[in-house]
Amino acid sequence: MTDHNRPFSDDERAGLYRAIYERRDVRSQFLPDPIPYPVLARLLKAAHHAPSVGFMQPWDFVLIDSLEVRQQVLASFHEENAKAAHNYTGERQQTYRNLKLQGIIESPLNLCITCDRSRGGDHVLGRNSIVEMDLFSTCLAVQNFWLAARAEGIGVGWVSILDQDKLADILHLPGHVYPLAYLCVGYVSEFLDQPELETKGWRSRLPLESLIHHNTWSEALDDQALLDQFEK
Amino acid sequence: MTDHNRPFSDDERAGLYRAIYERRDVRSQFLPDPIPYPVLARLLKAAHHAPSVGFMQPWDFVLIDSLEVRQQVLASFHEENAKAAHNYTGERQQTYRNLKLQGIIESPLNLCITCDRSRGGDHVLGRNSIVEMDLFSTCLAVQNFWLAARAEGIGVGWVSILDQDKLADILHLPGHVYPLAYLCVGYVSEFLDQPELETKGWRSRLPLESLIHHNTWSEALDDQALLDQFEK
Repeated sequence: MTDHNRPFSDDERAGLYRAIYERRDVRSQFLPDPIPYPVLARLLKAAHHAPSVGFMQPWDFVLIDSLEVRQQVLASFHEENAKAAHNYTGERQQTYRNLKLQGIIESPLNLCITCDRSRGGDHVLGRNSIVEMDLFSTCLAVQNFWLAARAEGIGVGWVSILDQDKLADILHLPGHVYPLAYLCVGYVSEFLDQPELETKGWRSRLPLESLIHHNTWSEALDDQALLDQFEK
Repeated sequence: MTDHNRPFSDDERAGLYRAIYERRDVRSQFLPDPIPYPVLARLLKAAHHAPSVGFMQPWDFVLIDSLEVRQQVLASFHEENAKAAHNYTGERQQTYRNLKLQGIIESPLNLCITCDRSRGGDHVLGRNSIVEMDLFSTCLAVQNFWLAARAEGIGVGWVSILDQDKLADILHLPGHVYPLAYLCVGYVSEFLDQPELETKGWRSRLPLESLIHHNTWSEALDDQALLDQFEK
């Protein structure tokens, strides 16, 4: 049994769970401090070691520090956000308008993780039946990056209120490359204890037991012994 | 500064990186041992703590242990896989046919992580501009599950060679629920040192430096100091 097959120590396992539970979608707490290269390299390598369909590795990483590029992205955000606000009325709209939804300029680094839909040719193993598997793989790289960042004390916020066509134009992406995730990245003054959308009353965390099914959708899990564990 | 803001210890950080680097897409090494409830609950809770657009939490978890259901899923795999094999010729087809691509029956638990596209109503915060954000969020839950499983010594294999419409039928999913990820889950005899598709010569890992761009796609990163870090 080689070394990588030894069980995780308690601290190692706790580290993984800390990253998962204490990760936040950061909007407001960014500090301007630059990210040292050895740390940034660890985050990018973590992303690059995500699983991908047929080992396709469809991702690329556009590191953005240019203020000019970020201002163009911010303009697209403002345009899309103004449209989105009209979907809500009354108090809900007021809450929406008060939410801080991006840290494009405040964070020292923006990162676009893209998906090259042509990589690996016409027949990528495992991508024939579900053609979106390349996009899904790229998401897994995003999550690796996000968790590694948390373990390094670095916050990440995914900005999804953007026009993807405009974003592709701003970043000069070729037609076969999709700008999957636009991330703001930087050290933070603090990680919030709970998701901001929860503390600000936007939505609550769903009870996990309501999301569990057994063998088919219509069959609830009637095994109380497992459900009881969710409280722990 | 509350406790969750203390820096990660070296062991905690190492644990996160171990999970990322030593995670495998498992096909062949499953053991029949059942997963104890406290462990399974930790994996599901980890998935449920993924980020989601507008705190939408679009995922559900269908736990599948019924042999009958798994046999139906396996039949869909065989059908899709036979079609896929025809995309390759000669030696490449032979390699493809020799690959073990699922562990549906050998693993003690199958798990379908679904995406409820209607959850949270018509206007989920952050999902107006990019309507696929709910699918992407569900992928992040998959990766949390996968990494937590690795830290618990449990292997996961994502089976994407399936007809999603048939899978939805087999699992009795309502029309607004998409079967995003079909996972085989179980303890393993060993975690392989490298991805199987790499050791079997299907594809190689891309050099990370070839995937880095600066500010726009067309601009390569000319900062050797960062690129050098990728070798470490």
